[in-house]
Amino acid sequence: MSDRTATLDPVVTEDHEALDEDYVLTASFVEKVVDAADDGDGMRLRSLLEDLHPADVADLMGFLTAEHRGVVVLWLPPELLAETLPELDDGIREEVLEQVAPGTLAEALQELDSDDAAAVVEDLEDDQREKVLAAMPATDRAAIENSLGYAEDTAGRLMQREVMAAPLFWSVGDTIDHVRAQGEDLPELFFDIYVVDPHNKPVGGIPISGLLRAARTVKLSDLMEPVNGIAADTDQEEVAYIFEKYHLISAPVVDSAGRLVGQITVDDIVNIIQEENREDILRLAGVSDESRGAGVFGVVRSRIPWLVVNLGTALFASMVIGQFENELKALVYLAILMPVVASIGGNSGTQALTVAVRSLASRELTSANAPRILGREVMVGLFNGVTIGTLLAVVAWVWFREPLLSLTIGLAVLINLVAASLAGTLVPLALDRLDRDPAVASPVFVTWITDTVGFLSFLGLAGVILM
Amino acid sequence: MSDRTATLDPVVTEDHEALDEDYVLTASFVEKVVDAADDGDGMRLRSLLEDLHPADVADLMGFLTAEHRGVVVLWLPPELLAETLPELDDGIREEVLEQVAPGTLAEALQELDSDDAAAVVEDLEDDQREKVLAAMPATDRAAIENSLGYAEDTAGRLMQREVMAAPLFWSVGDTIDHVRAQGEDLPELFFDIYVVDPHNKPVGGIPISGLLRAARTVKLSDLMEPVNGIAADTDQEEVAYIFEKYHLISAPVVDSAGRLVGQITVDDIVNIIQEENREDILRLAGVSDESRGAGVFGVVRSRIPWLVVNLGTALFASMVIGQFENELKALVYLAILMPVVASIGGNSGTQALTVAVRSLASRELTSANAPRILGREVMVGLFNGVTIGTLLAVVAWVWFREPLLSLTIGLAVLINLVAASLAGTLVPLALDRLDRDPAVASPVFVTWITDTVGFLSFLGLAGVILM
Repeated sequence: MSDRTATLDPVVTEDHEALDEDYVLTASFVEKVVDAADDGDGMRLRSLLEDLHPADVADLMGFLTAEHRGVVVLWLPPELLAETLPELDDGIREEVLEQVAPGTLAEALQELDSDDAAAVVEDLEDDQREKVLAAMPATDRAAIENSLGYAEDTAGRLMQREVMAAPLFWSVGDTIDHVRAQGEDLPELFFDIYVVDPHNKPVGGIPISGLLRAARTVKLSDLMEPVNGIAADTDQEEVAYIFEKYHLISAPVVDSAGRLVGQITVDDIVNIIQEENREDILRLAGVSDESRGAGVFGVVRSRIPWLVVNLGTALFASMVIGQFENELKALVYLAILMPVVASIGGNSGTQALTVAVRSLASRELTSANAPRILGREVMVGLFNGVTIGTLLAVVAWVWFREPLLSLTIGLAVLINLVAASLAGTLVPLALDRLDRDPAVASPVFVTWITDTVGFLSFLGLAGVILM
Repeated sequence: MSDRTATLDPVVTEDHEALDEDYVLTASFVEKVVDAADDGDGMRLRSLLEDLHPADVADLMGFLTAEHRGVVVLWLPPELLAETLPELDDGIREEVLEQVAPGTLAEALQELDSDDAAAVVEDLEDDQREKVLAAMPATDRAAIENSLGYAEDTAGRLMQREVMAAPLFWSVGDTIDHVRAQGEDLPELFFDIYVVDPHNKPVGGIPISGLLRAARTVKLSDLMEPVNGIAADTDQEEVAYIFEKYHLISAPVVDSAGRLVGQITVDDIVNIIQEENREDILRLAGVSDESRGAGVFGVVRSRIPWLVVNLGTALFASMVIGQFENELKALVYLAILMPVVASIGGNSGTQALTVAVRSLASRELTSANAPRILGREVMVGLFNGVTIGTLLAVVAWVWFREPLLSLTIGLAVLINLVAASLAGTLVPLALDRLDRDPAVASPVFVTWITDTVGFLSFLGLAGVILM
């Protein structure tokens, strides 16, 4: 046992560490699974897998071939299979779901909270979905159908219907007795109790550690704190923002009439934050929806659109350069130095736009402070432009001993860095105002602007100053 | 009241909405605060602020000038001030802390859990820190000093010492009675009970909803599930990974002997995930540690290093171009088209390196699957190279009607896109192997490589094919 995990470790099977100290499956463990699958040794597979955490089973699936996955699925204990399904990557989940009989699946799904079960059912082919739903008890089926009735990426889809609600007039003792008696119908895990009025509207929340601390006779109405219901149609990004800002562990979800319909817990939010961040970072780099298990053509599809757009903007820049054929023919050093001006501008624009996109996402940049932030960016562009422009002018002088060339390139860099600061801030702001995702389109526009301004200012100034 | 928040809303003061529907402070509310501060109307300030959530007070501080902040701090109720401190941006917190008398601060800090209190004390100047600690009760002081004894960004620094532990032989009833009696010494919020052996080593965990559900006579040892203690010296990024992977709400922290010393809760983890993501995304864009309240020179400092490095790599590219003076003089269209090859290569490299950096961070890219991923990237580079190279060759032919030029530029793009795929994957992998943060240095190296290969392949091939 490694010294990081000083306590009971459920992932040690047969005196063998399934995970290394970074909580990544060891190559030797994966090999054992592959061997057992090759031998069709089901009992050995089960003994290897049964103590794994569902998240690790999901990781394991990612390391296996489709063929081996097929064997492993057959031998996973049903409850572990159920808990693994929500953890799988989309592509692998679809493949696994095709192999499981509808009856087995219907049974497995009943082990899950309604949000996780709905996420799995959503991925089924239409005919399989019907069979699975038909094989489920009516209440479970209704819960799943209800969840799928909400739009994707909303609070309604994220929430679980199971929720611990208590009427306003209950005492702590009443509540504890209710939990002991009705435990089966409550969510598997819950962290807050929602106090509801006679219309089932949440009027307060009590963290259960607060409930435990209080005497049995205390009224819930004396213990509760104000709580904000999240409307079921709220976008998941907004939900994540609220959880993060107010450090929530769980929150009640309400329908349009304000009635309690479910709860969202923070563990789902952590996944969403990671997903949204991953999307943002990849979009800024011009990569769309690349799934981690994608094959060569999946990857190509996720990257080639931006390369084609980039080809367009780069050719536009070439057309700008083409206007200065005479200058380039006369003074070859212009051709040698011109990429420097565009490159510095491009990088400076990327810096400004990344900061702007990030600040928009975290709501640090709003229309209230946009003018101030823009003013600061222009000052930064001026200062960086003077600094980098001077540096480049000196290098150009050392290299070509042509004072007017130094003046030209220094001025061009100054102009381009101010343009980069302006574009890097204004473009994301404008896209956000137009309700477009600034992470998707900003890089295209900003690079276009800095390339164009870079070549135009350098070669244009050269035409005036040097010719 | 907006229809998003269907329940009690604590942020409505004087019939006036402090927050808009996106949970951002309204401009009119900020104005009211500014007016009250200008008038020195303390009672009005207090009535405006007292119902705000600490996170909103912190946001408000970000919108105010230093002068107005000074007035607001004077009139914040002490408990609200205490809870606001951990929410403030570093720069603003330091400024606010200088204005608060050590005695007031010592009192305020006692309201906080030990991790939050330590985070505030850490920011104090040495002499103020001594005064504040001297004014605190010995146990609170010891807790803070103990916390600061752990290295920054480790589990020990993140954890709170207050933790709910119960011996193995207790029943559910014993535990609830203990919580009711000792509530004051327990953490303000807790989500799991850690069952410890006689050496105070955690041997199991029980979510408190599970405790509530069970009858009073049930033994904890029958209820508990295995739990992994997190070593106090574990890096916070690793802690976040464990929380995310296993959907933890809280986890016990243990010392080198495996004894329980504290707990980490998921709300702190959400902040760390956002912080690490923010760092990654900004580093990839060549922006270092830019704090959101930074002035012009703070921003300049965070951006100019990468621009200077970029100036160096761009000049290196110019030197490469300089080797082909004769070609450029003879064929001006080479100068017109050469930035396209470098630009496409740079973008393609950015795509590959962003995916690689991201996959390394989420441990989807490991040494186990690196060769397979690299192989896939090369295939992607080849395919994209053929596609984009062909497109560009056609455009060049339409533009210049020179078949050999089309051949030259098509081949150059193909070569550069394969180089971009290789460099974009190998550079982050190599930096990671050398224990360097791949997000910091990868963009420099990869752009350097794609610029150099781009100009070299295009102009070099031109020399061979066209001259």
